[in-house]
Amino acid sequence: MESRTFCFSNNYLGEFRMEMKTVIITGVPGVGKTTVIGELSNLLKERGISYFIANFGDFMLKSAISEGLVTSRDQIRKLSHRLQVKLQGIAAREIANEARKQLANGGILIVDTHAIVKTSTGYWPGLPSHVVEELNPDVIAVLEASAEEIYRRQSEDRTRDRKDIQERGIEEIRELMLYARVAAISSAVVSGASVLQVLNERGKAREAAETILRVIDVI
Amino acid sequence: MESRTFCFSNNYLGEFRMEMKTVIITGVPGVGKTTVIGELSNLLKERGISYFIANFGDFMLKSAISEGLVTSRDQIRKLSHRLQVKLQGIAAREIANEARKQLANGGILIVDTHAIVKTSTGYWPGLPSHVVEELNPDVIAVLEASAEEIYRRQSEDRTRDRKDIQERGIEEIRELMLYARVAAISSAVVSGASVLQVLNERGKAREAAETILRVIDVI
Amino acid sequence: MESRTFCFSNNYLGEFRMEMKTVIITGVPGVGKTTVIGELSNLLKERGISYFIANFGDFMLKSAISEGLVTSRDQIRKLSHRLQVKLQGIAAREIANEARKQLANGGILIVDTHAIVKTSTGYWPGLPSHVVEELNPDVIAVLEASAEEIYRRQSEDRTRDRKDIQERGIEEIRELMLYARVAAISSAVVSGASVLQVLNERGKAREAAETILRVIDVI
Repeated sequence: MESRTFCFSNNYLGEFRMEMKTVIITGVPGVGKTTVIGELSNLLKERGISYFIANFGDFMLKSAISEGLVTSRDQIRKLSHRLQVKLQGIAAREIANEARKQLANGGILIVDTHAIVKTSTGYWPGLPSHVVEELNPDVIAVLEASAEEIYRRQSEDRTRDRKDIQERGIEEIRELMLYARVAAISSAVVSGASVLQVLNERGKAREAAETILRVIDVI
Repeated sequence: MESRTFCFSNNYLGEFRMEMKTVIITGVPGVGKTTVIGELSNLLKERGISYFIANFGDFMLKSAISEGLVTSRDQIRKLSHRLQVKLQGIAAREIANEARKQLANGGILIVDTHAIVKTSTGYWPGLPSHVVEELNPDVIAVLEASAEEIYRRQSEDRTRDRKDIQERGIEEIRELMLYARVAAISSAVVSGASVLQVLNERGKAREAAETILRVIDVI
Repeated sequence: MESRTFCFSNNYLGEFRMEMKTVIITGVPGVGKTTVIGELSNLLKERGISYFIANFGDFMLKSAISEGLVTSRDQIRKLSHRLQVKLQGIAAREIANEARKQLANGGILIVDTHAIVKTSTGYWPGLPSHVVEELNPDVIAVLEASAEEIYRRQSEDRTRDRKDIQERGIEEIRELMLYARVAAISSAVVSGASVLQVLNERGKAREAAETILRVIDVI
């Protein structure tokens, strides 16, 4: 009770400027997530807002290497599913810890990840309860584009090995997008976050980033 | 183990008549929720069943006022998202406390709220885990009507400021209704409740209330 | 921290072979779940993999009988919803306990259940948080077939009382299947499991079982 009242008084008096807020940015491969996060990074810099961008996959890799489980990124998907679930939890905690250090004076933690991932064991939630409990997100953004546009981007993308995805075709992208929305809503129910659908149209990554920035202003 | 056996024995012997049961009634704006709850109230009175109706929004307002955060309802949506999430949890606890007082000899707690709400930060779950843990619902009813009918009702409704919703059109109502179902199922998974879809056709609010009453008899 | 490192070292060194893994197999009535689980049982025997198959409904019945609540299966659905939710939790714990005994040297726990069940109180999740916390699944398999095929199988099925379901028609099967997917994803978000959709085409139960077996190899 004390802590609650304390918390509200502080917030009401505007003393919470030092608080860290968390935005999780999700999107299926090919939706243009990296570009939008780059634009958002620029916008936050321009606005003088402190932020820390954590790529979930990078943190999983770091955790797996430091546990002696893998030496390269490709080996992660060959670990047992149960081990990957544990790594997921460790990565979330490491991100939260690192963000608290980086943003000790407040700011925005941006987590770059997926709401759902297609793996050899099926659709795997990227934001299960043990992850959102660590990250405590205010908003889970779901970047979207038309399935056709995503298919096109996946086909053009030569920088990563995405052959498995290209072969699936547009119907499978549509299914993945639906399940990503469902998983994001479910992660929001578990955590109390909002789910923000953000359209990332061809050549309009800046607009998508601006949409996210407007929401950052009110969380 | 003891407490479990105790609980079942009591229930089996019929000594649980004093227990409180909880029905959460949700529905998108314009679905006719207020009318159905009014009819349900009449039916429960006729049947001599004790009940307590809690409007979630009213309890959030009360909590926000007593915390010194707002003086009127419109100011709530201008609070930070994080603060609204906290208010949501406080309101849920206050409802549970008040219901236990009002229904000390058993009865039905009816909570009037939304499964999902469209806000400036995106789709916000009305029944996240920290809320359902307080309310412990037996049933989450989702009132539904055709998107066209809801659009018509929203357009006719002059008693509240719903311009933002009217402009969205029927497609956006359909999306909101789908996400409301998904969020309700997710809240049910978190809490163990059932999800009861109830069709509220034009002029048939009494029938919708009777459907809910039949379920109240078996929870 | 110690226990985490301990756990990973063990796993990395391959000392976790004795661990029990859990696959939950769900599917709407008529999808052919019993046949697929029979085939999976054969495949696991052929491969010399230890396993224990638990039918969730059987465990609920056993718990209800031992609590003195019912004497036959049909009486369970006449218990109050709240009591059924409690029985659900007890059954999950009993399954976990029995599996730990049966698979003390490791193996696969296969739970035969539903992601969602249509009851007199609405759609009831078969894998709510209090159940998945006990079962700790690695994979939630969702068996699927075309709604038409399921309707046909339900109509032919004379071994159980499924009249209520037959009357619903194909549209209602489609809705149930959609909600089963949503509920499975939500249960996966709560537990960290993957959701594996498995197509069970007419006369191809063995193939469906082989798909599940391939996933068992990597969890």
